[in-house]
Amino acid sequence: MTKLKINPIPPLDNQMGHIVENYVNTLTKPPGSLGRLEEIAMTLAKMTSSPFPTVTPPGIIVFAADHGVTREGISAYPQEVTTQMVNNFLTNGAAINVFSKQIHAHLEIVDIGVADHIEGEALISKKVRYGTANFCEEDAMTRGEAEKAISIGYQEAEKLINKGVKCLILGEMGIGNTTTSSAILAAISGKNVQSLVGFGTGISQEKIVYKQQVIEKALILRKPKPTDAIDILSKIGGLEIAGISGAMLAAASKRIPILVDGFICTVAALIAKLICNDVVNYMIVSHRSVEPGHEIAIQLLKKEPLINLGLRLGEGTGAAIAFPILQSATLMLKEMATFASAGVSNKGE
Amino acid sequence: MTKLKINPIPPLDNQMGHIVENYVNTLTKPPGSLGRLEEIAMTLAKMTSSPFPTVTPPGIIVFAADHGVTREGISAYPQEVTTQMVNNFLTNGAAINVFSKQIHAHLEIVDIGVADHIEGEALISKKVRYGTANFCEEDAMTRGEAEKAISIGYQEAEKLINKGVKCLILGEMGIGNTTTSSAILAAISGKNVQSLVGFGTGISQEKIVYKQQVIEKALILRKPKPTDAIDILSKIGGLEIAGISGAMLAAASKRIPILVDGFICTVAALIAKLICNDVVNYMIVSHRSVEPGHEIAIQLLKKEPLINLGLRLGEGTGAAIAFPILQSATLMLKEMATFASAGVSNKGE
Repeated sequence: MTKLKINPIPPLDNQMGHIVENYVNTLTKPPGSLGRLEEIAMTLAKMTSSPFPTVTPPGIIVFAADHGVTREGISAYPQEVTTQMVNNFLTNGAAINVFSKQIHAHLEIVDIGVADHIEGEALISKKVRYGTANFCEEDAMTRGEAEKAISIGYQEAEKLINKGVKCLILGEMGIGNTTTSSAILAAISGKNVQSLVGFGTGISQEKIVYKQQVIEKALILRKPKPTDAIDILSKIGGLEIAGISGAMLAAASKRIPILVDGFICTVAALIAKLICNDVVNYMIVSHRSVEPGHEIAIQLLKKEPLINLGLRLGEGTGAAIAFPILQSATLMLKEMATFASAGVSNKGE
Repeated sequence: MTKLKINPIPPLDNQMGHIVENYVNTLTKPPGSLGRLEEIAMTLAKMTSSPFPTVTPPGIIVFAADHGVTREGISAYPQEVTTQMVNNFLTNGAAINVFSKQIHAHLEIVDIGVADHIEGEALISKKVRYGTANFCEEDAMTRGEAEKAISIGYQEAEKLINKGVKCLILGEMGIGNTTTSSAILAAISGKNVQSLVGFGTGISQEKIVYKQQVIEKALILRKPKPTDAIDILSKIGGLEIAGISGAMLAAASKRIPILVDGFICTVAALIAKLICNDVVNYMIVSHRSVEPGHEIAIQLLKKEPLINLGLRLGEGTGAAIAFPILQSATLMLKEMATFASAGVSNKGE
């Protein structure tokens, strides 16, 4: 058991779900004809315990951290790109800045463990340590550091929710973090490493085999316990992954829907699920990533993604791109006329 | 050959496509990591002949018309629902109103052949006739009426484009129009009717079989020529379908991207394709409908839909829901920093 201070996660309001399900069938459209939008509306009603749930404004927190395992040469990009990309976030040049602006989100960038010292007026500096250790040589971090990173994520999400955010998107930046996420997923799922390692930001087939070997070696050396989130994070984890899992736990405790991004974010969701299973009730998976491990992670969450556009960028971009679909579902409920109010004949009347 | 006045459709600007393809690879993200968004950006560049294409503001035209074939009892709803729904559009209560507002679209409602007399300040009254004839008994309309309906669609689209609309979505309202569209698709594709008829707005399995028989009977009696758009429309067509095909031809002639909605709209796209094959170059299919004929129609257009959310409402709603994805693609081009401008190390550098 952990020393983490996590508020209880309330159960879904299934009664509100039924109310909204019935209400949707009174709207001026053939029953069921808005497909998953109708399902989303009901899901959001259960999460928020509101007959007219809202998801605007959304909030996005991008956690940035470095990974000692990059010293094994598993990424297409050098480690300093993490820092460079954080600076790109701070000057609004990255993809997540663009899509965040498109959906009018509150965007926050948190340095939770970048290897370099970074400053910036808009940066939230919460560095737990200067990158993780190389988990091929030693534990990535201590249990205390893993718990601290989760708590930071938790607190940052609480702060953003207290500012009025109605839906939470989590993003990440960390060169090497598909390797870390693949190792975590292998530990949790028990699947063999070959089945879940992909080409990340773009490595060759040869390098994929090498990346698989690095992960296999780490799993043998570190022996993470598959049901102990803190053990997994401390041995083979990443600080940004810990932060995301904490943020998800905070959102769920406050009935705030979580729109889950791609591979790394979904692996963080599995970590959060190990800490408190009910957190999953507050998650909607935004998109199906190209990264092969994502499918396995989604299946473990028992979720069906909203879109499938061949994305594999991270930063929270897939969730931001899919966000307007959630918004459509809430607007359907809020703004459409009913058969009675519009004087439209219903089916078979 | 027709007497239609249709402006020539310019070829795609493939050179601009290459320029944008190269430019996308300089943006601060791993190459290819935004998947279909990158493809869409390139496609929009080819269509618009612009290195920074824009799709905002979008325009939506909903064409409403009635279908004589409803007298055969093929729909879940009575014919008067067409009129009632037009009134619902005019008072902003329908799904397309809600999603149109969400994407800040210019929305226009055109009565191109509703069976009742309708008035309304916001209604564009361009009635060609009071609904089509029952094509089980006689031709749905004359060739002249089919051409007039196409011309009306063409002119309405031109007017909206002249107002500054940068992307065109077409919608429809017409009780019975999945029957009409299935008949047209059977005529064009040569597929057997069983493979393409679905439950429309929600009819029973028994009624589906009856609907198939009605269509088979009509095809035998009317004998539409599979390559003659005007012959098909006049014998088994719908006025709103003709209007949509005209609007698509106008958009393509002005290099305006067309975001194609579901089954009925895609069948109208096939009619437009028969009139001028190059119109297809300006189409992006927004979503995959539940209606079984949609898959066949999409394949004939050689397109891959953007989203698959189990939608089958029509009115242009699927296209409006998918629209933000096009917008994301254009904003990616316009607003993201390049590796050089952001000082980020590129892959392998």
